[in-house]
Amino acid sequence: MQNELERFVTSIPDYPKPGVLFRDITTILSDPEGFEMAVDGLIEELKGLDFDYIAGSESRGFIFGAPVAYATKKGFILVRKKGKLPRETISQEYALEYGTATLEMHKDAIKPGDRVVIIDDLIATGGTTKAMIDMIERLGGTVVKCAFVMELKGLNGRKVLENYDVSSLLSYEGNR
Amino acid sequence: MQNELERFVTSIPDYPKPGVLFRDITTILSDPEGFEMAVDGLIEELKGLDFDYIAGSESRGFIFGAPVAYATKKGFILVRKKGKLPRETISQEYALEYGTATLEMHKDAIKPGDRVVIIDDLIATGGTTKAMIDMIERLGGTVVKCAFVMELKGLNGRKVLENYDVSSLLSYEGNR
Repeated sequence: MQNELERFVTSIPDYPKPGVLFRDITTILSDPEGFEMAVDGLIEELKGLDFDYIAGSESRGFIFGAPVAYATKKGFILVRKKGKLPRETISQEYALEYGTATLEMHKDAIKPGDRVVIIDDLIATGGTTKAMIDMIERLGGTVVKCAFVMELKGLNGRKVLENYDVSSLLSYEGNR
Repeated sequence: MQNELERFVTSIPDYPKPGVLFRDITTILSDPEGFEMAVDGLIEELKGLDFDYIAGSESRGFIFGAPVAYATKKGFILVRKKGKLPRETISQEYALEYGTATLEMHKDAIKPGDRVVIIDDLIATGGTTKAMIDMIERLGGTVVKCAFVMELKGLNGRKVLENYDVSSLLSYEGNR
């Protein structure tokens, strides 16, 4: 998958700051072949897995999570930034490079025993995913898989998620 | 479609302020049947239409736009809030209830002659959609359809988009 999908990624030198090679996935999305390959690749990772929901976080997690939920005929659960969900929520703070941010999900989104797959475009530090896992587990759910389009190995996200089943379609050694 | 899909919508009285009846679509998404019905309904609206891309705006436009792009085998173009896209962008300001906001898309996302479908969860005032149309047209593209899951008729979004082909799966008389 790495070689086939990689050709749709645009590498941008010195973005967002000098010395960083940014991997831009918008060119995967805008190419019908690239987008289909990425979504189908994620679906392939879930083959044979028993699960009830896909969860995706605002906003890039929605781009891959929603089509995977649609194609696998599962419900899609939104994890959003603070203050965006209309009903009763639970929340989880997580660390950013500078400061913290808070994610929320509806309290009734997960029932005890529900089996949840987390889908996101990118695993970097794993902080966002860990915050999602914490909320899902507090509601009694089980995270049965975390599937990403891209992994930046240098940020050690797999270490944070070491007790979970993690996969990625594309893997880069760097840290951006 | 109205009657079948409507049962997945949660109506929340007095949210976000007293007197407003908020229509919550997260319960469409979280139900496999509801989510499939909504996405299939949008796809049905595009039947026989010749188009190159689906465009969706951050972040709820991603939830419906991405599965429709995947299922119709088209590229998906991201319209994002200011400062979120890594390559050269064009931008368009639009009015909010209080103040303004700015949307951006990549300059190379659309080539002259491209035919684009805009997908979003909601048409209210039509301001977001109009800003998307303005950018797509400035890049030489043509908006061939705007398809929404829900329409709030009281905010007259169709008037703003009167020169475009607009459809919605669910329609409410109210203004929220």
